[in-house]
Amino acid sequence: MITSSSNSRLKQLALWQAKAKERRAAGVFLVEGFKMFLEAPEVQIKEVYLSGEAAEKIREYPEVREKLERTGYETVAPGVFGKISDTLTPQGILCVMARTEYRLEELLAVPKPVFVVLENLQDPGNLGTIVRTGEGAGITGIIMSRGTVDIYNSKTIRATMGSIYRVPFIYEEDLCKTVRALGERGIRTYAAYLAGEKSYDAFSYREGTAFLIGNEGNGLSVELAKSADEYLKIPMEGRVESLNAAVSAALLMYEAHRQRH
Amino acid sequence: MITSSSNSRLKQLALWQAKAKERRAAGVFLVEGFKMFLEAPEVQIKEVYLSGEAAEKIREYPEVREKLERTGYETVAPGVFGKISDTLTPQGILCVMARTEYRLEELLAVPKPVFVVLENLQDPGNLGTIVRTGEGAGITGIIMSRGTVDIYNSKTIRATMGSIYRVPFIYEEDLCKTVRALGERGIRTYAAYLAGEKSYDAFSYREGTAFLIGNEGNGLSVELAKSADEYLKIPMEGRVESLNAAVSAALLMYEAHRQRH
Repeated sequence: MITSSSNSRLKQLALWQAKAKERRAAGVFLVEGFKMFLEAPEVQIKEVYLSGEAAEKIREYPEVREKLERTGYETVAPGVFGKISDTLTPQGILCVMARTEYRLEELLAVPKPVFVVLENLQDPGNLGTIVRTGEGAGITGIIMSRGTVDIYNSKTIRATMGSIYRVPFIYEEDLCKTVRALGERGIRTYAAYLAGEKSYDAFSYREGTAFLIGNEGNGLSVELAKSADEYLKIPMEGRVESLNAAVSAALLMYEAHRQRH
Repeated sequence: MITSSSNSRLKQLALWQAKAKERRAAGVFLVEGFKMFLEAPEVQIKEVYLSGEAAEKIREYPEVREKLERTGYETVAPGVFGKISDTLTPQGILCVMARTEYRLEELLAVPKPVFVVLENLQDPGNLGTIVRTGEGAGITGIIMSRGTVDIYNSKTIRATMGSIYRVPFIYEEDLCKTVRALGERGIRTYAAYLAGEKSYDAFSYREGTAFLIGNEGNGLSVELAKSADEYLKIPMEGRVESLNAAVSAALLMYEAHRQRH
């Protein structure tokens, strides 16, 4: 059992928890909680830490116990576990996971794909909700600008409810270039844009499709919107000027799902 | 200008900011930011407080200035404004608003209404997003169980982006009784429930409609779900077990909107 917070591995964990840059450099991300542990692909699990209390509790959960026997784990004293946890009420289990690198070429090889392209989305919860809803709607993957919030942010990971393990995603330097690459593969791009006049349910998404969604405050940049094949709008009653980005993405992804099933 | 945080009105504001019960007893709620001020119905505005910095800034915003001339306002010293604000980076404007009381009978009198019925929703952001999306989708109103998070929570209000002023809502003691009252008016109730077999887009929502949505962790109670006319499901690919409550509500409300337009 690790009992001192000056333990070098705990120091490393606290650093990873605090700094996105350090996680990136090490090629890892951190997940917490039993659900996230149970859904984690074993091949990606590098290290598992349990609080003493959690180590007691798992006696009643054979599924967790058996997986822990396969992955191995280290017990951490309760007072010390708080130092490495990012949550207010930790469940007492934290895993260091290896990142998966997805390549655009692989995603483009999927027949009639559906992509969501996010430009500078800032809210971690919104991104996590899009990943979760995206898995539900059966999308091919998520393509993000470099300015989009870190998908390995702990709030994002929590909001994905495990979908982060299963929905492919890529950060791209130049989204306009990406949109051109999509076009070359016959994938039609639809910008959710204020200037859109045609309702989102008036297009067919049965062929290769990509939805472009912008930043929460400012929407899509003019440059990226212009690179799209079509503008679409989500009709809004009352005095609503825009919808939440995760809600917009959900409506579009599920409209594609509806048309395809 | 109010310069001391021991000022009795500031003490009252800080108390309202901290305690839902005190706000309720006084029949008020608090909103912050320029957008929320601009969209606030003047008849509901009771008091407006500006930080010294904000009072300077509004010189450039004739729309804000003119409204402030009509409503009146009090300036608060910058260091003191932080004591009454609930945000990390206050815009420097806070309003005390009179609550609006909606009556179920009035909402039921709307022809072919669309309601969202929320059972014990806990996340303030989810509730706010549902209010905002609900206005966009043109729903008639939101009916909530007493156990649902306070709609006047500052996070909820922020997430509504102003829709809180325009979407009618009611807290009800006994949702099963409410569902029966809806039924007596010919409004069909649809429970978003795991046992649902028919997809949400396979029903017609052209007549009076109410969608029942449950708590984030546990979904609808068996009792309330059973009181509904129909179970519906939102199809989910992959290993997704459920969608975010605000996303589910959005898909249902916009499906009703799509069918009606």
